[in-house]
Amino acid sequence: MTGIKQYALGLDIGGTNSVIGAVDKIGNLISYDSVKTRAFATVDEFVDTVSSKAKALMSEIGDGWECVGLGVGAPNANYYTGTIGFAPNLPWKGIDIPLGKMFEERLGIPVILTNDANAAAVGETIYGCAKGMKNFIMITLGTGIGSGIIIDGKLLHGTHGVAGELGHVVINPNGRLCACGRKGCLEAYCSATGIANTAKERVKNTDEPSLLRNIKVDEITSKDIYEAAVKGDAMAIDIFRETGTILGRALANFALFSDPEAIILFGGLAKSGDFIMKYTQQAMESTMLELYKGNIKLMLSSLSDSNAAVLGASAMAWNN
Amino acid sequence: MTGIKQYALGLDIGGTNSVIGAVDKIGNLISYDSVKTRAFATVDEFVDTVSSKAKALMSEIGDGWECVGLGVGAPNANYYTGTIGFAPNLPWKGIDIPLGKMFEERLGIPVILTNDANAAAVGETIYGCAKGMKNFIMITLGTGIGSGIIIDGKLLHGTHGVAGELGHVVINPNGRLCACGRKGCLEAYCSATGIANTAKERVKNTDEPSLLRNIKVDEITSKDIYEAAVKGDAMAIDIFRETGTILGRALANFALFSDPEAIILFGGLAKSGDFIMKYTQQAMESTMLELYKGNIKLMLSSLSDSNAAVLGASAMAWNN
Repeated sequence: MTGIKQYALGLDIGGTNSVIGAVDKIGNLISYDSVKTRAFATVDEFVDTVSSKAKALMSEIGDGWECVGLGVGAPNANYYTGTIGFAPNLPWKGIDIPLGKMFEERLGIPVILTNDANAAAVGETIYGCAKGMKNFIMITLGTGIGSGIIIDGKLLHGTHGVAGELGHVVINPNGRLCACGRKGCLEAYCSATGIANTAKERVKNTDEPSLLRNIKVDEITSKDIYEAAVKGDAMAIDIFRETGTILGRALANFALFSDPEAIILFGGLAKSGDFIMKYTQQAMESTMLELYKGNIKLMLSSLSDSNAAVLGASAMAWNN
Repeated sequence: MTGIKQYALGLDIGGTNSVIGAVDKIGNLISYDSVKTRAFATVDEFVDTVSSKAKALMSEIGDGWECVGLGVGAPNANYYTGTIGFAPNLPWKGIDIPLGKMFEERLGIPVILTNDANAAAVGETIYGCAKGMKNFIMITLGTGIGSGIIIDGKLLHGTHGVAGELGHVVINPNGRLCACGRKGCLEAYCSATGIANTAKERVKNTDEPSLLRNIKVDEITSKDIYEAAVKGDAMAIDIFRETGTILGRALANFALFSDPEAIILFGGLAKSGDFIMKYTQQAMESTMLELYKGNIKLMLSSLSDSNAAVLGASAMAWNN
């Protein structure tokens, strides 16, 4: 051990917000900043602005500290190549954008890239409710749905660096259009966007009374549905039941792959608490193969949304 | 190296046949024997008879050889506990039958138990088309559907020893009854039993002309469908199209979990060749998430049915 204090930078690129933070070796978030991901027309402008914010953090922290690197969590990120591929929820549609290299050039520090949900899974392992777990699945319910899979204590990257895209498991080949261009993905139903679309359909296609009818139909968000449910709105509560049931059935299928100790839900929608979790748990357990029944814990992430992903991304930099 | 020649016993317990064989260190099947799995009313009678056959093999091989142990591949087998759980396709419905211990008591050699599809995956890794592959999924299309998942060159066992039951992924929550008691499992459609049930439904519920109408409807088997397809029977060919399409869509979903180098199909139905493979490949590739397209090979096992499972089971004994 030297006397020099060290920290890692973590960047979580989400469909809506991107958060960059500096994290010390025991997981304290020293300082952070954020940008709106969709505010940048090109990936170059995005990387420029985030790099400026990173440099500002680095100089704020000062000379007594050493930065070990930057870990980036991004949708469709490839751990092996440091690139992001076709990412349905990001504004830049290029194929194989070399995000790792772009940040390295601007910051002059080692950069490691992974799927944002992978980063959240690592964050959960080191700082959250998955401490000591060797085998679990992290499902991030945000603008889209991501997943990070831990097996034998290690992040599963796969052959081509893109393992764990469980949000794009097709649950209905003739179902709703997904942001990825295909039909019937889990994400099209159980992400924040998906549940909002369910509400929009219900408002448009039924006569059910609901507080949601007080909102312009195309502007309904998952937050509106939650707030209506809190006020006892029957349609909002039923939308959570429908969404939780779809999610729970999917989780019972995922369990059959890796026989995990737990499935951990993370992100805005997971915070809707019992409105969704009760039905998710019920559907998961009642759909579960006999051999697995009662064995797989369904848990909520114990980290706050932004923290888990940023801490996880930074943890990637420590591990690098 | 000593001068003593060694071999391992491998036992593959299938829904129809169980095969026991003696395998040398480089994968030669020295000798083997088989029994009809369903001919035994109790698991004790089954273990007694198979143990007698094992002893006969051992004495046939003679004193110049040393037996290192027995590897058993069985449906719903638990690697950690040496037991089989509720196995839909086996005649003995006990929970946690201590098969490993029962064989150890009778044979006096170390016994290791795993899922029959896991054993086939190990066999494929050592002797078949998965040599050198670090990440692949083996799907066994037999009486039921099993799966063996290799990640980082190792068999995935999971937290409770039962990882890889992809035959029981529910593809339609309101679908056909599966042998496991639930509805709409992949196995209910794409196993040998499943495709036979599709044919029975088509014969009963439609007026389509077909050679299959020459067979008593409740006795139609997957072999009959294959033979009709070979003769150009339109309904039989369409049943393969339907089955292959369902299978291919499921495989595209499985790929999202581990991003494998290949998915390898094994078992009777896989041998129906292009009748099923063409549609499986088409559906898998056309359903595949953009990020994965063209990356995942679909392959046929290069080992004969009985050999792969027996060799794989025996390989478990070497590794033990």
